Amino acid sequence: MLPMPTANTQWSLQEKTIAKEAFELSYRREIAAVMAEAKRQATLAADPADLWQLNDFLSARRHYLDGKYDFSPESLVFTFAQLIKEGWLELQELDGLAAEKLSKIRILTLM
Amino acid sequence: MLPMPTANTQWSLQEKTIAKEAFELSYRREIAAVMAEAKRQATLAADPADLWQLNDFLSARRHYLDGKYDFSPESLVFTFAQLIKEGWLELQELDGLAAEKLSKIRILTLM
Repeated sequence: MLPMPTANTQWSLQEKTIAKEAFELSYRREIAAVMAEAKRQATLAADPADLWQLNDFLSARRHYLDGKYDFSPESLVFTFAQLIKEGWLELQELDGLAAEKLSKIRILTLM
Repeated sequence: MLPMPTANTQWSLQEKTIAKEAFELSYRREIAAVMAEAKRQATLAADPADLWQLNDFLSARRHYLDGKYDFSPESLVFTFAQLIKEGWLELQELDGLAAEKLSKIRILTLM
């Protein structure tokens, strides 16, 4: 059953479930990449500058992820577009959202 | 040859050399401990909270070390006393400083 078209800030329960799953999937992928990079840097670290570089890397990613993974309905289409552009999510992983939302997200990924 | 007693903020060239070496020795030991702990945390990290804990650990140590390793002559006896109290340096590694300075440092380690 296709969900009914809704306004951008209106998310049906079914859509919220799909969005939440995609959101968490994307977050797990991105955090796994940060984790791998942090472990790589820590393993290779040989002097203080390497440690502070790891510190800066973690601070920057943490700040960036905190700001980006915003599940509020008003920003969700923008967030999904960004996650797709950055390669953390595929548009088809949002299948089941209203066609109008998918179309908005697709257009935003081209901007 | 014993160095002449000097005022606390007066450091002879010989004393500066001794102080600088002890200072760097202590820093190398302490940073090695931070490095080992960071590598340990990174290796064990399994979820985002572990990463942010490593980030907090590095930020805190960095800030603490930046503040503590102050080589200005006015604060040097205090710094050495603190390094000894924390176990990064032995009083005998300062052998060659004026007796007055060593005595000040020893008293400060008891406070």
